[in-house]
Amino acid sequence: MSKKELTLGIDIGGTTTTFGFVDIDGNILKESQFMTQAEDHVTAYLPRLFDAIDEAMAELEEGVVIKGIGMGAPNANYFRGTVENPPNLKWGGVVNLVELMQKKYKIPTVITNDANAAALGELRFGAARNMKNFILITLGTGLGSGIVVNGDVVYGHSGFAGEMGHLIVNYDGRLCGDGRRGCLEAYVSVTGIRRTVSKLLADSLVGSELRDVSQSELTGELITQAALKGDKIALEAFEYTGHILGQKLADTVLITSPEAIILFGGLANAKDLIFEPTLRHMEQSLFGPFKGTVKLMMSELQHRNAAVLGASGLIWHELEKQNAA
Amino acid sequence: MSKKELTLGIDIGGTTTTFGFVDIDGNILKESQFMTQAEDHVTAYLPRLFDAIDEAMAELEEGVVIKGIGMGAPNANYFRGTVENPPNLKWGGVVNLVELMQKKYKIPTVITNDANAAALGELRFGAARNMKNFILITLGTGLGSGIVVNGDVVYGHSGFAGEMGHLIVNYDGRLCGDGRRGCLEAYVSVTGIRRTVSKLLADSLVGSELRDVSQSELTGELITQAALKGDKIALEAFEYTGHILGQKLADTVLITSPEAIILFGGLANAKDLIFEPTLRHMEQSLFGPFKGTVKLMMSELQHRNAAVLGASGLIWHELEKQNAA
Repeated sequence: MSKKELTLGIDIGGTTTTFGFVDIDGNILKESQFMTQAEDHVTAYLPRLFDAIDEAMAELEEGVVIKGIGMGAPNANYFRGTVENPPNLKWGGVVNLVELMQKKYKIPTVITNDANAAALGELRFGAARNMKNFILITLGTGLGSGIVVNGDVVYGHSGFAGEMGHLIVNYDGRLCGDGRRGCLEAYVSVTGIRRTVSKLLADSLVGSELRDVSQSELTGELITQAALKGDKIALEAFEYTGHILGQKLADTVLITSPEAIILFGGLANAKDLIFEPTLRHMEQSLFGPFKGTVKLMMSELQHRNAAVLGASGLIWHELEKQNAA
Repeated sequence: MSKKELTLGIDIGGTTTTFGFVDIDGNILKESQFMTQAEDHVTAYLPRLFDAIDEAMAELEEGVVIKGIGMGAPNANYFRGTVENPPNLKWGGVVNLVELMQKKYKIPTVITNDANAAALGELRFGAARNMKNFILITLGTGLGSGIVVNGDVVYGHSGFAGEMGHLIVNYDGRLCGDGRRGCLEAYVSVTGIRRTVSKLLADSLVGSELRDVSQSELTGELITQAALKGDKIALEAFEYTGHILGQKLADTVLITSPEAIILFGGLANAKDLIFEPTLRHMEQSLFGPFKGTVKLMMSELQHRNAAVLGASGLIWHELEKQNAA
């Protein structure tokens, strides 16, 4: 029998770094995590990463082969192998993480941002199996997106394609973290719906338990719970969020005409509260020929380790492309 | 010496049908056109098309081989080979034109809409040679677009991807031919800039020679000539058009991150009058990482027979894909 083949999937977040060894069917054989300590320079981070990987590797059964490494990280560039000035990692400028990993482990290594990795996780192990054209949207602190066309993630000329969080909803709208106004993620994300609750609390006189919660204490979970109890402000916040998301999805469908749009992340946990208005407004806004052609789906990795599966999906996908070439 | 290989490129428009025999370098060896007579059923149209092709074919030098047929037509579906209810052809519902052509000529045949064909013409013979990621925009009566990602046109799941003319500029905006409000092509197209002139004539009191022209007499050429003479309404109309186009291009760059955006068609003839404001507003609106990454270019087929080269580019591209597979 041939040796067991695994890939190493690594997800680097501002708070934690998670990694795991994943086989071709998406089984995670071993998984670990440690604090990223985002304020450290990359030269302090890397030894911690290497130690953690080496320790986990030593515990794998004998004879396994690690075929490659996939990484998901903020502001990562697939073409250059770099992580470039992410606001939530104080690594110091542009870091060629692929080069550093390859120097140490001497196996194929690829990197992309977390949303693109999540899309590849979904393609190999989740809701998008057998799809050629779909869009994955992550609804967390911000809004990330990974766009798959003809069976591959769209990186574009720059390597940074698929930044739907910065589509403009309203040129005079809410200030976004990037300094511009009216970006989609200022409305549609956990942070966005929280801002929407504040706006609704300002505009209306309707009673709401959310009037007793400060903006910084407000979570997607709290808004969801209130909405499930019939709280009008919370329900209206989901309606507003779904309205804006649905309209922007309808615009995006004109560009790539996906078979499905898959929602993932904190806000997707609200299920029908967010899916129903999003689908309704998307269908209302869609240009005729596209009406009824797009499925809106829940991620199938939502309650598994999506980040590790995404990073692993990235490298499995890459190895397959290399074999095909 | 091997036989001379050609493809047949056919462009079917509401007014005229143009076709030509094109070699792999984009030389058009023979070209003809005839009136489409759009009010006829396809069963009346086809014999005219066949006769015209057969006649032209008979005049080709002996020994040439026709490798395949590429067609550009309104509402054409690449996957299904169909032309589906185009508003400007009274062919009667859904017509499988690829099947009908293959039955007669028994060679590989493909169809897509005119903007996708134009993109492939640009890819093989024009401004996008050697590009992997670009967008072609046609600015004629409407706004068409062909989006190339990883070296191939994006057809999407439905086969209709790349309909940027129906991106929404303003949900309460101008009525579009499709019955919705605020579509990009209601602002950015020859028809769109004409409507903008009417709006500006309504809003302002500035003197303008365009006050002496009826809306139906107004052409892109007239507006361009007025602008070149310094007419304030005409100049403002180009500024407004470029503003809206630039903003929507900036949104689209987030999705596919093209190396270039290529403008083609009637309004592109206005050159700097449209290019300058479009580029300026696109750059202003672009999300940081994309600033300065996208070229705005003039089509290189603008003054050649772009429609035939596009349709021919489509089939040359297809034959190459089949050889690679």
